[in-house]
Amino acid sequence: MTPVCRAAARLCLLHGWAPVAEAPLPDGRRADLWVLTPAGEFLVIESKSGLRDFQTDRKWPEYRAWCDRLYFAVDLDFPPEALPTDVGLIVADGPEAALVREAPHHPLAPARRKSLLARYALLAGRRLALAQDPEAALALMGALRVE
Amino acid sequence: MTPVCRAAARLCLLHGWAPVAEAPLPDGRRADLWVLTPAGEFLVIESKSGLRDFQTDRKWPEYRAWCDRLYFAVDLDFPPEALPTDVGLIVADGPEAALVREAPHHPLAPARRKSLLARYALLAGRRLALAQDPEAALALMGALRVE
Repeated sequence: MTPVCRAAARLCLLHGWAPVAEAPLPDGRRADLWVLTPAGEFLVIESKSGLRDFQTDRKWPEYRAWCDRLYFAVDLDFPPEALPTDVGLIVADGPEAALVREAPHHPLAPARRKSLLARYALLAGRRLALAQDPEAALALMGALRVE
Repeated sequence: MTPVCRAAARLCLLHGWAPVAEAPLPDGRRADLWVLTPAGEFLVIESKSGLRDFQTDRKWPEYRAWCDRLYFAVDLDFPPEALPTDVGLIVADGPEAALVREAPHHPLAPARRKSLLARYALLAGRRLALAQDPEAALALMGALRVE
């Protein structure tokens, strides 16, 4: 996890949200942070290491399909005016991060939310169990290719 | 986590299930393992360290309210004939465990399943994020009393 991602994840935890890093989405892409809130909303937080990283990525709007709100996370050196204003903005300062601009709300359809919740829950539960039993993780990774 | 729980958790991972240890349930009790399967079923696995542990626990049937199937997990020294037959049985042998008796199916009501899935997902996601950032965990535990 990059420092910007880690700081954004801490911000999530402070809000009571549950951030899963490098989450595989149904379209095969990975979200830097895929976040579930106690209200049942899904957020995607896409970290950008610098202007070039943002300018060469034309696919970030596709994350909207898997969340209710989309955010970029950048550090203090990133020029925020380069980012579109219809995306939320999180700015990291070392290990801390601040929610600088709220993201527009584009609610998921109920059937998709339901299937995403099942996917998120299995992913988080399996990764947690593997994190707590590294020996099992080693033994299983080869056999099962757990995400 | 006890060795029996750990072995049962590995068995879950081998089945592709997602076991969360010491999971706080809506009634205030904790499940030794609260497990989500890819089919969307919830299991509770209650570990018993010995006959006395089982005989002094009169509340284990209450776990049925939070799962579709209930199992006991014991080690090889436990006399299996002492356990009720309408509960599943997992027997641990060192770090491995075997599913010795399937559990009866008593499906959760849809509304409860839905609320349990949201609860499970948040719990697993938060714990995973905290496990991956122990510094954040230390800082947050005091402030938030994260489960």
